[in-house]
Amino acid sequence: MSSTALGMRLDGLAAYVPEQVWSNARVAARLRLERMRLGASKRTAGSGKLPAEEAKLFETSDRWVRRFIGFGERRFSPEGEGTIDLATRAARLLFERSGHSPNDVDSIVVASVTPSYLYSPPDAALLQHALGIPVWRGADPRELRGADISLACSSWVASLTICYALIRSGMARRILLVGADRMSAAINWRDRSFATVLGDAGTATLCTAVPAAEDWFSPTQFWSWMDGGHAGIILTPAGGSRRPSPLPEEVEAGKHRLAMDGAAVKEVLVPFTGGPAMDAALAKAGWRLEDLDFATLHEANLVLNASIIRMWRERGFRGQVLDAGGRFGNTTSASIPLALAMNPGELVVGRKFGLLGFGGGLSASFAFGTILHPLPAWNNLRSP
Amino acid sequence: MSSTALGMRLDGLAAYVPEQVWSNARVAARLRLERMRLGASKRTAGSGKLPAEEAKLFETSDRWVRRFIGFGERRFSPEGEGTIDLATRAARLLFERSGHSPNDVDSIVVASVTPSYLYSPPDAALLQHALGIPVWRGADPRELRGADISLACSSWVASLTICYALIRSGMARRILLVGADRMSAAINWRDRSFATVLGDAGTATLCTAVPAAEDWFSPTQFWSWMDGGHAGIILTPAGGSRRPSPLPEEVEAGKHRLAMDGAAVKEVLVPFTGGPAMDAALAKAGWRLEDLDFATLHEANLVLNASIIRMWRERGFRGQVLDAGGRFGNTTSASIPLALAMNPGELVVGRKFGLLGFGGGLSASFAFGTILHPLPAWNNLRSP
Repeated sequence: MSSTALGMRLDGLAAYVPEQVWSNARVAARLRLERMRLGASKRTAGSGKLPAEEAKLFETSDRWVRRFIGFGERRFSPEGEGTIDLATRAARLLFERSGHSPNDVDSIVVASVTPSYLYSPPDAALLQHALGIPVWRGADPRELRGADISLACSSWVASLTICYALIRSGMARRILLVGADRMSAAINWRDRSFATVLGDAGTATLCTAVPAAEDWFSPTQFWSWMDGGHAGIILTPAGGSRRPSPLPEEVEAGKHRLAMDGAAVKEVLVPFTGGPAMDAALAKAGWRLEDLDFATLHEANLVLNASIIRMWRERGFRGQVLDAGGRFGNTTSASIPLALAMNPGELVVGRKFGLLGFGGGLSASFAFGTILHPLPAWNNLRSP
Repeated sequence: MSSTALGMRLDGLAAYVPEQVWSNARVAARLRLERMRLGASKRTAGSGKLPAEEAKLFETSDRWVRRFIGFGERRFSPEGEGTIDLATRAARLLFERSGHSPNDVDSIVVASVTPSYLYSPPDAALLQHALGIPVWRGADPRELRGADISLACSSWVASLTICYALIRSGMARRILLVGADRMSAAINWRDRSFATVLGDAGTATLCTAVPAAEDWFSPTQFWSWMDGGHAGIILTPAGGSRRPSPLPEEVEAGKHRLAMDGAAVKEVLVPFTGGPAMDAALAKAGWRLEDLDFATLHEANLVLNASIIRMWRERGFRGQVLDAGGRFGNTTSASIPLALAMNPGELVVGRKFGLLGFGGGLSASFAFGTILHPLPAWNNLRSP
């Protein structure tokens, strides 16, 4: 490793979305079906009708989702496929199209909140095998670094930050950074709040060491924040190590699935991300809102994001917003690279960008950079 | 951040183990009870006796565990407490005894395979709140970096590697590194293979930036490896994103709990860790086995570890082995710092050490360093 290799560029990125499209109407129908089933089981048990307050949790429509969330559709993985399958397909697409070889990768970082397996094995190790990355050179093991990294909706930018630290410190030269989540696994079909939001996708980005003069980033261009005081507004009540054995009735009620207080999320995250978080991150980087040619926000909810962007615009942001257009839902650790991969024509040399993750925890993780080399991007929806 | 702050030292570490002690006899009795319950339910269902092959999975004894695993006892968290509770107590112990303030921490890295909550919130954010680490300075958010990191039994050394990269790159100055796992949450009480092995513990280590000349480590003193081709030998069949909704009978059979092919683990990991893995890591560091004053291995199983150490001894290792003496079981992400915290008198300035994580994935993550400053260590079993 040359001691001048102290910068990082992105050498290509790819996104894979599953084939199965779920329109808002289909999600609404699935929620209605669940309400019918619950109603029937309540009648059978002689416990009366579903209270109006509870029945409301099942009600949604295409119109409502488009108006209040901004999503038109999302995609779900088929039965039996998890995060590793999304990750593997995205990585294969990246290597096939870019012509880079997986054999050159020295590190695999998997950003995800939905590990394919609880406890073990980690997705990073599964990906080594799925891609056939060599871990032997004759009788000697070939070094390969890896980790699964999770920080709710900020997982991907938090992982990008770690990739930068590994490269900047001279510890890695070529990192395969995956952002992938099978969020459909986290849906409680008795609660519209996340059912209308979540989607599945996998992405793969190649992070490569370059001389310091060609660095797209700098240590000051990464900014992060956490506040566990609001942890309850995006939380899974059961199934983790604090409550590893939910009762059958809790499973039935979806207590092992992700829940959100949507109003609180909006109330807390919009003013924070739109105001002081962005200010602090820009101040650290020595950048201004005016400097950004484009911004990509974690696609939590396009209506919420529009409120954040409005605050930035009022204070000088004139750049473009690259998003996935509400076609894939909130794909958590995949959302930011997915949005980039859906806008390959906009990733033009010379442009300054902001990648802005925020959400559960609460957490925020931002990165600012400049595209200094061509950044090819692919997705499985476009022909080559 | 001064550009000369390019090294890392460990500024103190603390371990917390829960009060509830489970002897081998108690584990054996719990397995027998489970067998009786299963036998009774089979008789009720008229499906005959438990097949001998299956019945064997419940059989163990203090003598057997001591002989083949080397553990005498372990500790389990009380109902309702998860990884975050172990982590918080260890971190409080660290700050109380060391006199350092949690307010100086700029990053929280949580190594764990048993997150307190599925999907969200991350334990790093919960720890910020539990410790009262400030995230506001007046109207401005104070930067705080964080991530939950998982790589099976190699999680802690993989996370230490990332802490080093963050500090070495100038991106962090003071990191709270937690290694904590409530492994009792992962036990299938119908399978002795992990039931006799796992335990719960939390640890907290302070990683601090120092001038390069005082660096305990170097980029070449970290080595990692992964091989997903053997992922199946330590694996949780259901409950992850590939199989998020196990059937009630699968839950009853413990398919959402960790399972191990103990013979395969031994067959693969002993010759690998005892031979080529250690050779490759030492060669990268420019160290020899003779250089190590002490080694701490992930306490997977003391009998397995003894086989690894025997291979090293045959080839020149003359150092001490610091372990937790089989008193706490395999605590996964806590095991290495727990062993250090149980041997505070051995952490003497000038000593060269190897920290050696290996296990599920398969994965291995090693770090070599030299204690260059006093390293105080505490645990909740000793009086101050």
